[in-house]
Amino acid sequence: MNIHVAARPAATAEAASRLAIADCDIHPRLKSVKQLYPWLSQRWQEHLATFGTTYRQPWQKGPAYPKAQPQASRRDAWPPGGGIPGSDLGFMTAQHLDPNNVALGILNPLQTGQGTQNIDLSAAMCRATNEWQVAEWTGKDSRLRASVVVPYEDGPAAAREIEHWASHPHFAQVLLLSRTAEPLGHRRYWPIYEAAAAAGLPVAVHAFGYGGWPISAGGWGSFYIEEMVGHAQAAEAVVASLVLEGVFARVPALRVVMVEGGSAWAAALAWRMDKHWKKLRQEVPELSMAPSEYMRRHVWYTTQPIEEPEPRRHLAETIEWIGWDRILFATDYPHWDFDDPAQALPLRLTEAQRRGLFLENARTLYRA
Amino acid sequence: MNIHVAARPAATAEAASRLAIADCDIHPRLKSVKQLYPWLSQRWQEHLATFGTTYRQPWQKGPAYPKAQPQASRRDAWPPGGGIPGSDLGFMTAQHLDPNNVALGILNPLQTGQGTQNIDLSAAMCRATNEWQVAEWTGKDSRLRASVVVPYEDGPAAAREIEHWASHPHFAQVLLLSRTAEPLGHRRYWPIYEAAAAAGLPVAVHAFGYGGWPISAGGWGSFYIEEMVGHAQAAEAVVASLVLEGVFARVPALRVVMVEGGSAWAAALAWRMDKHWKKLRQEVPELSMAPSEYMRRHVWYTTQPIEEPEPRRHLAETIEWIGWDRILFATDYPHWDFDDPAQALPLRLTEAQRRGLFLENARTLYRA
Repeated sequence: MNIHVAARPAATAEAASRLAIADCDIHPRLKSVKQLYPWLSQRWQEHLATFGTTYRQPWQKGPAYPKAQPQASRRDAWPPGGGIPGSDLGFMTAQHLDPNNVALGILNPLQTGQGTQNIDLSAAMCRATNEWQVAEWTGKDSRLRASVVVPYEDGPAAAREIEHWASHPHFAQVLLLSRTAEPLGHRRYWPIYEAAAAAGLPVAVHAFGYGGWPISAGGWGSFYIEEMVGHAQAAEAVVASLVLEGVFARVPALRVVMVEGGSAWAAALAWRMDKHWKKLRQEVPELSMAPSEYMRRHVWYTTQPIEEPEPRRHLAETIEWIGWDRILFATDYPHWDFDDPAQALPLRLTEAQRRGLFLENARTLYRA
Repeated sequence: MNIHVAARPAATAEAASRLAIADCDIHPRLKSVKQLYPWLSQRWQEHLATFGTTYRQPWQKGPAYPKAQPQASRRDAWPPGGGIPGSDLGFMTAQHLDPNNVALGILNPLQTGQGTQNIDLSAAMCRATNEWQVAEWTGKDSRLRASVVVPYEDGPAAAREIEHWASHPHFAQVLLLSRTAEPLGHRRYWPIYEAAAAAGLPVAVHAFGYGGWPISAGGWGSFYIEEMVGHAQAAEAVVASLVLEGVFARVPALRVVMVEGGSAWAAALAWRMDKHWKKLRQEVPELSMAPSEYMRRHVWYTTQPIEEPEPRRHLAETIEWIGWDRILFATDYPHWDFDDPAQALPLRLTEAQRRGLFLENARTLYRA
C-alpha cells in the first residue's frame, strides 16, 4: 500500500524571512521508556519492566495509524542519527523549527501513561514525562513550551500534578485526550479544570485516547479513515459535554483548546445546542447564557488537519463564525499527516488575520 | 419542570391561501398495539401478550423524552376524542394537514418493532405496521405517503419486506433508524440498500433507535439535551459509514434522506472526509470519487429541528454548500419540538428556493 503524501520542499534560505509562526501541536517522543527512569522510582521501573502498561485499547489488536507510516510519522522525519521521529531535538530543529520559523512551539507528548488503567502508574509516568519535557526540550530550546500531562481518569491526582507545575514558566497548558472513560464534562474531571484555571493554564483536548467506547453511536467502524473522520464527532461530544455540564459556567476562567479534531463543525454544534437549549434550559440550570456563548468565550481550535473545501470561501465563513482570534495554527509534526505552514491555509487572508492565526492568537492565549 | 414551548397560532382562514408544503417527517401512532392484530398471526399476538418486545434499550430505565412532554408530543396534540398524539387522522387533519396546507405528508412511524431483538417478531411487526399505514392512513388521505418499515438488523428479511411493497403506490421510502448494532454502511445492511434502489425508493434514516452504544465516543452523557445534540453526531457517523464502506459506489441509484439529525454539519463532515481520503484512498478503493461527491449526489436532509444561527446568513451558507435542492421541509408533527412552517425557516429565500425547500424538492425525490 502506497499512501499518498505530497513531497515537501527542502528547507531554503528564504525560510528565515518567512513570517514567524506558532506551532500549537508538536509531538516529542521518548527514544525509549528508559528516558523516564531518572524520574521514576525503583518501584515503577520494575513495574514497567515486569508488567508494562495496560490500556483500554483496541489498538493493541492492530495499528493505530496506517502501517505504511511507522510511528504515524512522515517518512523523512526519522533522525539520521537514530531513534524514532520526534525523539531528537537537533533534527526537529533542523527539519522543522528553523526552516518553518517556529517562534513558539507547543509540545503535546502522547505516549505518557495518560489513560493507562493503573492510576498510580499513570500518575508516576505523567510526572516523569513532565520532568523529561523540561530537561530534554524546553530547557534546551526557549521557543518550546511544555504541556502538563496528567493522569486524567483520577481528577484529584491530575489536579495535584497541575498544582506542582503551576508556577513553572516552561508549561503552556494542561493536556488531555478526547476519548475518556466518561464524557469530559463529568464531575470526576472538574478538579482538572479548577486547577488549570487557578494556574492560568488553558486545557488542551487532543484527539485520540480511548475510554472503552466505539467512536460512532452505531458501533465499530471498518476503516482507519472512519476513525480519523470520527475524531471530529468525538471532539463535538467533548465540547457539548463541557458546555452542558456547566463546566464553563462553574469555572469562568477556563480556556479550552481543541486539538486535531477540526473546527468546521463548531457552528453547527453550537446552533443545535442553542436550538434545544431554548426549550430545555431547565435541565441545565447552571447555564446562564446560550451554549454558543460559552463556546465563543471559552473554546479555541487548532488548524491541523485543516479542512480544504471547494469553494474555499466556505472555510473563511466557518472561521468567521468561530472568530478569527480563536484559531491556532498547528502542524502535528512529525506525524505523517503534517500540515505544511507554507501550504496549509488555502485562503486569502488579511494581514491581521494571517498574523493572528499563525502567531498572535497563540501568544495571547498562552501568554508567551 | 416547565418546558418552554412557544404557543402556536390557531389555524386561521388564511391557511388555505398559504403555499402548499411537503412535510417529510410526520409520526403516526398506534392507538394500541392491538391495532396491528388484524395483520399479526395468532402466534405473534400471543407472543406480544406474553413477552412484549425486548430492545437494546437503556431508555427502559427512564424517559426517552422529557417527561413533561408525554409521548414526546405537543401538549395541544392530544386528540379530543381520546387516544395519544398522532393516533387520530381526523384530528391530525384538523390540527396540521389542513391549516398548514400539507400537500404531501411522509409518514415515519417509530414504534414499529424495528430494532427489537427478536428478529422474527421484528419482521412480523414491521409487516403489520406497513399494512396498518395503508389501511388507516394513506388509504384514507391521498396527501399521505407511507414508509416501508423493515426489521433492519436482518438485511435479507428487510429486503424481502421492501420487495413486498415495491410496486405499491402508497409507499414513498424505506425507513431506518440511525443507531444500529453496527454502523449502517456495514454489509449486513446492504440488502436493504439494494432492494430500495431496485424499488426506486429512497432510504430515510431517522434519528433515534439504539444499538447498544453510547451516543458519544467518551461514553454516557448526563442530559437529555446532550442526547438531542448527539443525534447530529450519530447522523454524521451514518453518512461517513455509508460513504466510506462504498455503499453509494456499489448502489449508484441509492438515495438517502437524513431525518431529524440536522444538516449544518454536512459540509464540515465532507471536508474532513475529503482531507483524509486524499491521503488514504487505498483503504477504500471502491470509491471512485471524493467522499463529498457521494454526499452531494446521494444524500438529502430534512429541516427539523432547523438550526437558527445568528447571524442568520450562516444558515443560508450551509445550505448553499449542501445544495438548495437537497433540503426537505419537515415538522416532526406531533412531537413537542415541532417546527412550525410559518416560522421555521428564518431566512430570506428566493421564490425558487422557497418552492424547492417547502415542496418541490420532496415531490422530485419522492416522485409524488
